[in-house]
Amino acid sequence: DDYDAARTARDWDDATWILTSSFIIFTMQSGFGMLESGCVSHKNEVNIMMKNVADVIFGGISYWMLGYGFSFGTDPGTNGFCGLGKFFLDPADDASMGTEYSRFVFQASFATTATTIVSGALAERVRFTSYLVFSFFNTFIYCFPAHWIWAESGWLRKLGVVDVAGDGPVHVVGGVSALIAAIMIKPRKGRFTSEDHHEMESPVGAILGLFILWWSWLAFNCGSTFGISGGKWKVASRAATNTLMAANSGGIVAFLSSYVVYRNFHVRYVINGVLGALVGITACCAVTSVKESLAIGGLAALFVLLADAAMIRLKIDDPVSAFAVHGVGGTWGLLATGLFAHKDTVARIFNDNNGLVAGGGFYLLGIQALAAGSIALWTASIVIVLYKIIDLTIGLRLSPSEEESGADFIEHNVNHRHLHTKRRKSTTVSTTPLTTAAATTTTTAALPPRTV
Amino acid sequence: DDYDAARTARDWDDATWILTSSFIIFTMQSGFGMLESGCVSHKNEVNIMMKNVADVIFGGISYWMLGYGFSFGTDPGTNGFCGLGKFFLDPADDASMGTEYSRFVFQASFATTATTIVSGALAERVRFTSYLVFSFFNTFIYCFPAHWIWAESGWLRKLGVVDVAGDGPVHVVGGVSALIAAIMIKPRKGRFTSEDHHEMESPVGAILGLFILWWSWLAFNCGSTFGISGGKWKVASRAATNTLMAANSGGIVAFLSSYVVYRNFHVRYVINGVLGALVGITACCAVTSVKESLAIGGLAALFVLLADAAMIRLKIDDPVSAFAVHGVGGTWGLLATGLFAHKDTVARIFNDNNGLVAGGGFYLLGIQALAAGSIALWTASIVIVLYKIIDLTIGLRLSPSEEESGADFIEHNVNHRHLHTKRRKSTTVSTTPLTTAAATTTTTAALPPRTV
Amino acid sequence: DDYDAARTARDWDDATWILTSSFIIFTMQSGFGMLESGCVSHKNEVNIMMKNVADVIFGGISYWMLGYGFSFGTDPGTNGFCGLGKFFLDPADDASMGTEYSRFVFQASFATTATTIVSGALAERVRFTSYLVFSFFNTFIYCFPAHWIWAESGWLRKLGVVDVAGDGPVHVVGGVSALIAAIMIKPRKGRFTSEDHHEMESPVGAILGLFILWWSWLAFNCGSTFGISGGKWKVASRAATNTLMAANSGGIVAFLSSYVVYRNFHVRYVINGVLGALVGITACCAVTSVKESLAIGGLAALFVLLADAAMIRLKIDDPVSAFAVHGVGGTWGLLATGLFAHKDTVARIFNDNNGLVAGGGFYLLGIQALAAGSIALWTASIVIVLYKIIDLTIGLRLSPSEEESGADFIEHNVNHRHLHTKRRKSTTVSTTPLTTAAATTTTTAALPPRTV
Repeated sequence: DDYDAARTARDWDDATWILTSSFIIFTMQSGFGMLESGCVSHKNEVNIMMKNVADVIFGGISYWMLGYGFSFGTDPGTNGFCGLGKFFLDPADDASMGTEYSRFVFQASFATTATTIVSGALAERVRFTSYLVFSFFNTFIYCFPAHWIWAESGWLRKLGVVDVAGDGPVHVVGGVSALIAAIMIKPRKGRFTSEDHHEMESPVGAILGLFILWWSWLAFNCGSTFGISGGKWKVASRAATNTLMAANSGGIVAFLSSYVVYRNFHVRYVINGVLGALVGITACCAVTSVKESLAIGGLAALFVLLADAAMIRLKIDDPVSAFAVHGVGGTWGLLATGLFAHKDTVARIFNDNNGLVAGGGFYLLGIQALAAGSIALWTASIVIVLYKIIDLTIGLRLSPSEEESGADFIEHNVNHRHLHTKRRKSTTVSTTPLTTAAATTTTTAALPPRTV
Repeated sequence: DDYDAARTARDWDDATWILTSSFIIFTMQSGFGMLESGCVSHKNEVNIMMKNVADVIFGGISYWMLGYGFSFGTDPGTNGFCGLGKFFLDPADDASMGTEYSRFVFQASFATTATTIVSGALAERVRFTSYLVFSFFNTFIYCFPAHWIWAESGWLRKLGVVDVAGDGPVHVVGGVSALIAAIMIKPRKGRFTSEDHHEMESPVGAILGLFILWWSWLAFNCGSTFGISGGKWKVASRAATNTLMAANSGGIVAFLSSYVVYRNFHVRYVINGVLGALVGITACCAVTSVKESLAIGGLAALFVLLADAAMIRLKIDDPVSAFAVHGVGGTWGLLATGLFAHKDTVARIFNDNNGLVAGGGFYLLGIQALAAGSIALWTASIVIVLYKIIDLTIGLRLSPSEEESGADFIEHNVNHRHLHTKRRKSTTVSTTPLTTAAATTTTTAALPPRTV
Repeated sequence: DDYDAARTARDWDDATWILTSSFIIFTMQSGFGMLESGCVSHKNEVNIMMKNVADVIFGGISYWMLGYGFSFGTDPGTNGFCGLGKFFLDPADDASMGTEYSRFVFQASFATTATTIVSGALAERVRFTSYLVFSFFNTFIYCFPAHWIWAESGWLRKLGVVDVAGDGPVHVVGGVSALIAAIMIKPRKGRFTSEDHHEMESPVGAILGLFILWWSWLAFNCGSTFGISGGKWKVASRAATNTLMAANSGGIVAFLSSYVVYRNFHVRYVINGVLGALVGITACCAVTSVKESLAIGGLAALFVLLADAAMIRLKIDDPVSAFAVHGVGGTWGLLATGLFAHKDTVARIFNDNNGLVAGGGFYLLGIQALAAGSIALWTASIVIVLYKIIDLTIGLRLSPSEEESGADFIEHNVNHRHLHTKRRKSTTVSTTPLTTAAATTTTTAALPPRTV
């Protein structure tokens, strides 16, 4: 009876941690929204916010329907590849509902984040209805790797993989998906030409987005102890410190790199460096030392910045560097865990092996590489098929004239030229950029008047 | 002694939950501010942020003076209609101060939210000093229904009303107050004419506001278990899941509705649909199933969108759809609880009756309808008198020329024409919109120069 | 054994509180960023956000290297002036790591906040590389006063000083540093002349910043109980109430003052009044009554507004009122504690003496004055030397033509004239402000083309 009482108090202490973390993790959607809308031109800034709204809504519903069950179902038939059961989750049982609901909320915050990563790579040229379909189905790219790594029966988990807060299922999945998307949809009109005018048009918004992501990453990584009782509060505290210090290290690398290249401190460098370091520390935040975290974060920033430069040289147009930050950062994070992880002797939930540097030999590194490779391969295969089907049915990309007018106007009837249009009436000299004026006027005629 | 120790640990576990939730709930003010300033024209965007500041300050002080006592006082004389005591709250007693202070913080976060809802309906035309007076007195519209529903002696609570997180005292009060306000103050100049240029001028800000509200709503609904110990963590987890899924359902309805009506995805539809669903699930978030939450959220979005269209047809000018979202959504939330609520067998704090669908007959539905009706009637009566008095003394509305110049300039000396004014000097052709130039110039002369 | 189990549960309950508070405190960086970027002209808005990024990164790394050890080290040699040990913090010991890591995260969130305060005073004219150096070294201005006040061996703590959430180490340090910085770097070009065009160019962003700071201040003050177990949850709840009510009182004073002076509600008055009150209540939030908090907050706002007016009269250019809010507010906060503090009979962690008004005589007031004076003197001495060295080596200030072009363009290659430049091509009349056109064109030629 005494044991039962203590057990119960532990339950609610853990639930407090899990729910509070989840609430903060959901603010990542605001962060991605501001970051991405800040990185694109004004004529597409509303569109990309709407995509982030759609990610939560359509990704959330498919995750509830099937995704959660494929990841964490435990019905007969559950195997190393996927779970079964808990579909259309609706636990009525008073005893188990607390655990089930709180786990669902936490996992849903992860699942919708994975989807959001891709929206940046498709920015300024994807058809919105296509994106809605993608939001719904992306869950199924995410939920199987999540099973492999986090479910007790997952094949990678059984091999001893370590991925504390999801470099595999969240970042490698999101990043590789972004790469394939960027290649398939082709660059924005005029991008990589001498006429290229694409740039980050709201840097203040983008940095606000960076900040929101930064703080919510603390909850993302620390919440991944999935409880606070026992020794979990200790590794959660370690995860917080390591996350902070890795980001600082990545930030220093970014500031220095930008200065070396440009004699200047570019916003994009700093954003990518800090985010890359945060992604890099995600897999082993709770099971490594502070000094190793500094190395992991600094190297993550370096790899991410190099990858971003390579993407530009290869003329793959990824407007918010989604592949560099999440794909490269996530892969490095998984491998770095193979190098720097220590046995988890405190909470005993994460890791039974030492990494290479800690004297554990090549075993863990091999498993981590296997995880990165298999998840990347899985993602690429599904995404190619999914996007091909979307392209052949709905059509993946806006028409050139629609792209010229901007998705805000085409998809959401938001007319940023509003003030200029009114102003034009009161002057004899047009002050509207010539490039968009014609397209805007034409398209307006084809649409019903806005009533609200 | 052992019992005492456990009792004490429960107290601080509950306090952690209550305080953390309160801190997140206060971020709703940021959400409403960004949403509302995004929905209005640039010349009124600062004014509406300042109103949200005023809501916390003036609403907070009157709630502390009298509101909290009328809601939760327990001195002799306390009755079904109102509490007495705890006015000018300042508990010095070491034993009770923890409970009293933490409850005050939580309730104050609710009270100031109720006030904020109204600011949108009055946007772009209310006199700021009138609004300050309203902020102060709105507390007294809120605090009595809060007593009826949440205090142990409240008449609706004694009848068995269920309103987990305040669809009655927060949303019906706020929404009905917004409706009366919008009718009494009349439409903005030019609104509902062919010359109408009012539109959402900062949609990115408005969607950021939606996001902030969305995540803080999780704390709003889950924090309303008012503790985490015992079975409360289970119903809090359920409340989180239901809140998320209802919002997703409402979002899907909004995306589809907008597409059906416009072949387009309007920002206003999506914002109203998601917020409407969040309001709709507020009353029974902790005591219904996930599938029923999906129904509640989807129907809430539908009702809210229809109500918003009706308001436009009736030419009642509610710039941010405050009545549709909060008034209609809140009423539906109370009624939906009468339909879908289940007995609370886990935490045993919310509900002793089953709703109609769960086989409990019409009793609960009747009580819920009584709550909605009596709160709406109470609110309407007081608001009409309050606004009439304000109108006859200070004056409710800006003069036509003040409205033309914009409240930012008139009330806060913020001149958005700044850049255009400077630019005009360097050109021979005026690029300033003709409509505001004259008014601005005139009014500038009448004001002291800005020194800071 | 039973005692051990309870002891452990306390540990993780406290860790939950400390970590959650820290996560929210870090959002203050977003608040300062938005507030400051809103207060300056558009051509410097990105620059000031980047400074806030740099504060976390460079301030965080120096705090980890040496700052934390100087504040909280306990190795032999530790004395009243500074701690020794815990440098390059990396606790490997399973038993102590939880406490050490969680304390580091909490303290790091404080340390980086202290640095951020100064960025506003240097706005629109400081060289970015100089600021990076300052960010790194500012930690050493902060960490010694933090030892004096919070470490068990600190000389002020031994005398009985009371500073719950850091009016001394955070606000007096930040504010005095801002004052010296503003005096040494001299006013912005054209400031305090008839040609002065400096004003708050994004008031909506500034108010969003105020909101973010306001809510995170709750975690700042309440988290400073540094735990929730025992009686700590009671004083944390009291701290939350007092923080809210002091801010409300300060807000009312600000609204009234602005109306008396301008017949208008100035954004800067309201921001400074609310923030000043929040600073004012910081030192004694947990150990005073609500009514006294109202007095402290209201007087804080008054002193801050008067100090800000005095700074303008003295022609000391502090663009975001950093000295007035933090320096004056922080000093008042320390003194107010000497007046209004009560013995902490509940948590028994903060205060053994009554203040003057509570009948404790002049002892506590004397100690508080000593704390304010010694911290101000310490800060001023170090800052003068540090800035003089930076000025003589890197150079503190941008050149006049760089300042004219704006730091966004000079330091970060962000060209806000982008749209105007394009527009110019399509018209025969220039619409670009003459003041910046020449400088921009000249400087563009000297820089490498932007590739991303």
